[in-house]
Amino acid sequence: MVDVLGHSSNWKPRYKLMIHQLLHDKKVVLASASPRRKTLLAMLGLTPLIIPARVEEPLSAEKPYLQAMRHAKNKAQTIAGRMDGETLVIGADTIVVLDGAILGKPADPRQAVEYLSRLSGHTHKVYTGISLCWRKTCQTRYERSLVEFAPLSETEIQAYIETGEPFDKAGAYGIQGYGSQFIRRIQGCYFNVMGFPIHLFYKMIEDLFKENTLEI
Amino acid sequence: MVDVLGHSSNWKPRYKLMIHQLLHDKKVVLASASPRRKTLLAMLGLTPLIIPARVEEPLSAEKPYLQAMRHAKNKAQTIAGRMDGETLVIGADTIVVLDGAILGKPADPRQAVEYLSRLSGHTHKVYTGISLCWRKTCQTRYERSLVEFAPLSETEIQAYIETGEPFDKAGAYGIQGYGSQFIRRIQGCYFNVMGFPIHLFYKMIEDLFKENTLEI
Repeated sequence: MVDVLGHSSNWKPRYKLMIHQLLHDKKVVLASASPRRKTLLAMLGLTPLIIPARVEEPLSAEKPYLQAMRHAKNKAQTIAGRMDGETLVIGADTIVVLDGAILGKPADPRQAVEYLSRLSGHTHKVYTGISLCWRKTCQTRYERSLVEFAPLSETEIQAYIETGEPFDKAGAYGIQGYGSQFIRRIQGCYFNVMGFPIHLFYKMIEDLFKENTLEI
Repeated sequence: MVDVLGHSSNWKPRYKLMIHQLLHDKKVVLASASPRRKTLLAMLGLTPLIIPARVEEPLSAEKPYLQAMRHAKNKAQTIAGRMDGETLVIGADTIVVLDGAILGKPADPRQAVEYLSRLSGHTHKVYTGISLCWRKTCQTRYERSLVEFAPLSETEIQAYIETGEPFDKAGAYGIQGYGSQFIRRIQGCYFNVMGFPIHLFYKMIEDLFKENTLEI
């Protein structure tokens, strides 16, 4: 059997730099309940064990990028403490910020209306912290993106809230879903806005397993 | 039965401004074979009939945004000519441009290496034309986004090509897939880079069915 690239069926890739190849011999745990993060990892060819870390994440006056990193590390460390050191544990936390204020998950339809009214016609920031724990140490970094909402009418906000989509999402919207119709443009990593900055994750994986990245 | 939003089971939304609501009573045809466009429309709650228009799209010296719009309109018109006027036919065409040169689908691994080497460490442009044909007239517009690739080593390019992903994609990469690990940032509409700018589509649908957009 020869495939489309001219490979025979016992062919093996010579260069193993794709994320799923770098992690092919690792046990991987995602310390997050987010279905969007699971979807993104699946897109990369990863099937991590999902063990959500149920840690409290009170928002504070600390800078958003520090909070996102601290929460991500808390999640990863909590789960890593129960695993053997050879398991790679991934923690992540996403924070939506408008004019210096953090917008969490809306408590009710009224708060969803408030958040979406504030986002309407403006550009906000999305921070995701990522923490990778492996062999008793954790490496933590963050990514930032800007998201520009189209101006929304009251009826557009009501129509969107009636889909039910805003309620389990920071900032009361999902960019990957019905909410996409209201997003004019982004600047930065799109996957960060979805909750998991893939290019940053790749750079961190590369740093972690540097000695294994090249096999010719 | 009452759902999470407090709606009873015979509840109907009051505001019908979401794309799937605006199109709920329309026959919709997507004149494109792209699985990514089909996926994006499904994300919006649409299940169009897929009838790919097999029109020749020779690249020319014409400006990229004009080519993308012309190709999109050709596709939509070709299919609309076979349908009754009440069917909404959607055509789309995506063009990748680096330093004024259009990068099509790579013909072979050597051309994929060439394209990815040129994209490496640089920012390129992605144009998507959208054409909507309804009641014998076509409305055509385009969206532009910028995409920044991380600098890629030769071995990264080889590893990516060995996944097979580059071969059916303009510019030899897919942002929604393994290619995501090499994309540093974008500026503009992410869904445009995937092949279907959703916010633009929404504005065009709004213009087309303006009289039907508000039902209180």
